Amino acid sequence: MALREDVIVGAPGSAGVFRTQHVDLPGPLPLDCGRTLEGVRIAYEAYGNLAPNKDNVVLVCHALSGDAHAAGYSEEPDAPSAVDGFGADDRGIRPRGGLGWWDGMIGPGKAFDTNRYFVICTNLLGSCRGSTGPSSINPATGQPYALDFPVLTVGDMVRAEKQALRVLGINSLLAAGGGSLGGMQALEWTVAYPDSIRGCISIASTARLGSQGVAWNAIARNAIMADPDWQGGSYYDTGRAPTAGVGIARMVGHVTYLSAESMRDKFARRLQDRADYSFTLTEPDFAVESYLRYQAERFASRFDANSYLYISRALTYFDLARDHGEGQLERAMAGVKAHYLLMSFSSDWLYPPHDAYELEAALRASGKSVVHHEIQASYGHDSFLLDERQQAPIIAAFLEKVANDD
Amino acid sequence: MALREDVIVGAPGSAGVFRTQHVDLPGPLPLDCGRTLEGVRIAYEAYGNLAPNKDNVVLVCHALSGDAHAAGYSEEPDAPSAVDGFGADDRGIRPRGGLGWWDGMIGPGKAFDTNRYFVICTNLLGSCRGSTGPSSINPATGQPYALDFPVLTVGDMVRAEKQALRVLGINSLLAAGGGSLGGMQALEWTVAYPDSIRGCISIASTARLGSQGVAWNAIARNAIMADPDWQGGSYYDTGRAPTAGVGIARMVGHVTYLSAESMRDKFARRLQDRADYSFTLTEPDFAVESYLRYQAERFASRFDANSYLYISRALTYFDLARDHGEGQLERAMAGVKAHYLLMSFSSDWLYPPHDAYELEAALRASGKSVVHHEIQASYGHDSFLLDERQQAPIIAAFLEKVANDD
Repeated sequence: MALREDVIVGAPGSAGVFRTQHVDLPGPLPLDCGRTLEGVRIAYEAYGNLAPNKDNVVLVCHALSGDAHAAGYSEEPDAPSAVDGFGADDRGIRPRGGLGWWDGMIGPGKAFDTNRYFVICTNLLGSCRGSTGPSSINPATGQPYALDFPVLTVGDMVRAEKQALRVLGINSLLAAGGGSLGGMQALEWTVAYPDSIRGCISIASTARLGSQGVAWNAIARNAIMADPDWQGGSYYDTGRAPTAGVGIARMVGHVTYLSAESMRDKFARRLQDRADYSFTLTEPDFAVESYLRYQAERFASRFDANSYLYISRALTYFDLARDHGEGQLERAMAGVKAHYLLMSFSSDWLYPPHDAYELEAALRASGKSVVHHEIQASYGHDSFLLDERQQAPIIAAFLEKVANDD
Repeated sequence: MALREDVIVGAPGSAGVFRTQHVDLPGPLPLDCGRTLEGVRIAYEAYGNLAPNKDNVVLVCHALSGDAHAAGYSEEPDAPSAVDGFGADDRGIRPRGGLGWWDGMIGPGKAFDTNRYFVICTNLLGSCRGSTGPSSINPATGQPYALDFPVLTVGDMVRAEKQALRVLGINSLLAAGGGSLGGMQALEWTVAYPDSIRGCISIASTARLGSQGVAWNAIARNAIMADPDWQGGSYYDTGRAPTAGVGIARMVGHVTYLSAESMRDKFARRLQDRADYSFTLTEPDFAVESYLRYQAERFASRFDANSYLYISRALTYFDLARDHGEGQLERAMAGVKAHYLLMSFSSDWLYPPHDAYELEAALRASGKSVVHHEIQASYGHDSFLLDERQQAPIIAAFLEKVANDD
């Protein structure tokens, strides 16, 4: 498959219009669980122009419920972000319409400057937004995989990204970057393919989730699997889906993405469209209750429950020290060659700055190139999607440094 | 009903054996929702001896899932805490057996010294541990109330406690104290009955839960109500109960009761009885996942889902400023006469020290008697049940001060 030829670059100050494309991997994809996956498709969008020597490719990696539509405007009726969009709008903080989930960061003159870089965003393996996942048809049976889909790791996701890029004729990256699970993928790239990546931008992320993060993910998955409509994962074509369980999972996720401070600023104890308590159990009296219920319903209508389970499992499995360093982070990072930009947010308690400091220390101990910015921001984990103003110049300067360090 | 005559005081150093008793309120209980409740029963235990002039009564108030068995050993086969016990053991941190949930704090020579004080612990209205609640029989129908039970407030709970004590011949308190929802009750006592209480011990509590706390409670309630086995609350006698939903609610609760630090110390990323990942969605690979699942099952088997809903609702409704001060905490506290002891814990993010500082400021602004200790402790909200060593001398000194301030 040739590189798509219809890459559109928006004029400065105006958004381009993009459609999600896809590539099909030519061979089976080996997985960390020991199985292989046939017929893997990876959805992606690309922004900017590929340099003749292909040295300006930046891979943007999305988080749990994101998709390939990272930037620009999509007019596709089923465009992921046009329907809902992962990120800021999803938390009801501002409307985004059909704009990509990181549109404020990707474009001409922006942090990921499409006048200079060829920016690709792939939908991750296991998702339900165009790439192969548990809702895809299993070629061996002609039915959706459901729980026959293999349990994935972040290593598997990155392996799929590497192969997808190879199909596009791209064998190395100027940089990979993303927030949360996206930052995990960027880190994994540098460890798995040290000779194929020169820069890593890991934002609001970690080399391994702590106990509390593992717990939140376990609760979310349990909520989905406890829903009778989950039916052991085989709910496709039954006319029922575990929307209630997905809703509970999303509520838990939402609250962990925000800080107590930002919730207080947004909701306080304000009642929703009423002057007094309802004195019922079922009415969402408080604005924050109403908000959570709305977000849960909205998310459950657009995201596949099994994809949520698989991706959540993968991000709890992610552990650079365990997988690459016999338990020691320093050892895991011994062979890397990339420059690292770590960014953490003071109010992020899901992926706390502590984790970034730990990773920074491990990289420094190995004499690696790393800069870490702990940014003072009040939005919690969501800061990586919301606080673009502080992040943009740091990312721009980092990419400049990496591009010039030949 | 006369005061129970079989109060047993353990010899110093040994625990007494106690049975939960109960009182039936002689008349209907008026409620904040406008309804009244007939035939209210309140379970309680009592420790120590009532002084002839009845000036040594300390009411201990429990938290969401607690019960009247606060101290000593119970040999009743269905004794609440013998089965499971709210608190420390419930988090698997140490075994408690049939000991009361605050046994380390209540007894001869302890913080609540039963050689001096007559300590009563009532099971709160709406619970399922001996007091009238949604699982009780509605005298009007002969069936369990289920959702016909009125939605309660902390004010209602305290009103029931006041009436129950009156039945026991007790019209005023030396002090009321408790943690979390127990601390809310103690605060409510001082505002609702300023002339009947001389001391308030509010631990790891607040005058009003913030947005995030409201959100966690909403998620827990939604998880229960989303369980089809909840059946609109009418699950009694159907052979099914929303144990899955209660389990999810409890998991959320557990994590909010602990600090990230204490979870890391206890679980890290340790796997449970395995050397490698299972590469399944359903196995609880991590120790913290296994732990949450176990605690969820254990709790769901002992606590009534509707009681959880009602009590959770009440604690989110609690708002001293709204209910007594037209939105202003200082105004709400203007008429109180008690001495206040506030204790908060540095790692408690569910009832953060910030709230206690706010309450302290409101009390000081009104010239009230208040002392606030922010205790450095790592167990999160659970510190009030676990960090007895630091709390005990502070409580003992406070009660001494209140007792001597005639």
